[in-house]
Amino acid sequence: MDRVAEVADLVTVALDELLPRADGPESRLTEAMRYAALGPGKRLRPFFALEAARLFDIEERPVLRAACALECVHAYSLVHDDLPAMDDDDVRRGRPTLHRAYDEATAILAGDALQTAAFDIVLHPDTHDDPGVRCELAARLSMASGARGMAGGQMIDLLGVRDDLGGVARMQRLKTGALFTYAFEIPLIVARARDTERQALTSFAHDIGLAYQIVDDLLDVEGDEDILGKAARKDEAQGKTNFVTLLGVDAARRRVGHLADQARSHLDPFGPDADILKASVDYVLQRRN
Amino acid sequence: MDRVAEVADLVTVALDELLPRADGPESRLTEAMRYAALGPGKRLRPFFALEAARLFDIEERPVLRAACALECVHAYSLVHDDLPAMDDDDVRRGRPTLHRAYDEATAILAGDALQTAAFDIVLHPDTHDDPGVRCELAARLSMASGARGMAGGQMIDLLGVRDDLGGVARMQRLKTGALFTYAFEIPLIVARARDTERQALTSFAHDIGLAYQIVDDLLDVEGDEDILGKAARKDEAQGKTNFVTLLGVDAARRRVGHLADQARSHLDPFGPDADILKASVDYVLQRRN
Repeated sequence: MDRVAEVADLVTVALDELLPRADGPESRLTEAMRYAALGPGKRLRPFFALEAARLFDIEERPVLRAACALECVHAYSLVHDDLPAMDDDDVRRGRPTLHRAYDEATAILAGDALQTAAFDIVLHPDTHDDPGVRCELAARLSMASGARGMAGGQMIDLLGVRDDLGGVARMQRLKTGALFTYAFEIPLIVARARDTERQALTSFAHDIGLAYQIVDDLLDVEGDEDILGKAARKDEAQGKTNFVTLLGVDAARRRVGHLADQARSHLDPFGPDADILKASVDYVLQRRN
Repeated sequence: MDRVAEVADLVTVALDELLPRADGPESRLTEAMRYAALGPGKRLRPFFALEAARLFDIEERPVLRAACALECVHAYSLVHDDLPAMDDDDVRRGRPTLHRAYDEATAILAGDALQTAAFDIVLHPDTHDDPGVRCELAARLSMASGARGMAGGQMIDLLGVRDDLGGVARMQRLKTGALFTYAFEIPLIVARARDTERQALTSFAHDIGLAYQIVDDLLDVEGDEDILGKAARKDEAQGKTNFVTLLGVDAARRRVGHLADQARSHLDPFGPDADILKASVDYVLQRRN
């Protein structure tokens, strides 16, 4: 989809400007951060932030900067999740994972510094004139990514404690859902949106996040590693349950279709302004990587 | 020193309240965060923040909360530095390091979530009514701890590139100096201090931070592991230069004395209000762990 590719380029250029560059020997660290954050990626979360922003009469700059911060958090989580002590992955986005391209110590540090960079970017006065908006953007990002959000979800995933659909759904709501929701919170915060608008976009975020994860589980079962750009059949190898092992392929696909319909319907109140966002639902869910 | 112990207790109690507690299986993560942040520690950085705050007519609450955030960043850096891929340490503060008490994956995640918690704490409206102050407190913390601060210093340390005193001093200014300086920036930001006050405390931070590090290097050479609560003679074992290998023990001690005198003199403009801060210099530098 053209608009997704357009936003991906926009975000990559902005990130390249926003990420730190060091002169001394610590340039190894800033180069590793760039390897992780600037590599090929769909920039789906930033896309949602920027496309949802078009529903409101707001400047692009604050949304773009917060979306870059969000992408830094996403990138740091991938770097750390790929480490030998975690998921032990060698390939990510079709390239060696950071600890393979550099080394484990650098990967740990680069992940740490990418998280820090996220807050640095969003808190900078250039993000928004109103420090109240900057504070809220940063505070929501910390909530979405901490122990009660993404990191908590990753802990549950590592423990493998998820016997039923409810357990898998809760894990995913924290591990991937919280950052998806944050993507929509960015324009909601900047626009000081009304409760009805907040509710519509938050519901959309919930459905699209869940559908995205079910597709991820389908790709883990059925996907082609060359197209995926990462290892497949990992949950099976680790004896972990996921949406597909619990529902079966057919029921999982039906659920994705149902969630897609429901997601689009949440956007009806926005009228034709939401057409691209609606069209992105199928693009996101029919992805092959 | 009574005041240091008093502040350590105050900070530990506050941190216990501020750190997240989870109910689900992710409670393993929040427990690990607590193990790392609430264990025995001198809480020296929070002490400096709170004691320097007494030089100004400001509320304690914002300073205490930002000091807790600073302690979270310090704790996360220790957790990650101790990992097998980094310094590979088994003992910290007289107890098993986090990855020994739990496991590596949990230690990586708990470090990540402690960094997030730091921003969560400082950005919360309870920290200060003025979002501009909260933003500045958080932004300075991210600058002090990122690729151009603590994380950058740790990268240089890992690479071992430091042939001369200038290189060692630069590495330490980033790795430990940046967070020491932040401790004093907290009250300076909250008090909207004058430039002369800012200059005095920043100079004090610089001298005390450097002296602290030289003492650390002396303890690494001469210290008793049982009292240190961590491994000693590590730089020597890893063939790394430090202040003591470059200067020799006697010259290193003389430099500590010189820095201590200089540090105290920076506080003269504050008069007797700075007596405890001045007295803390010897306490900090005569420590045995």
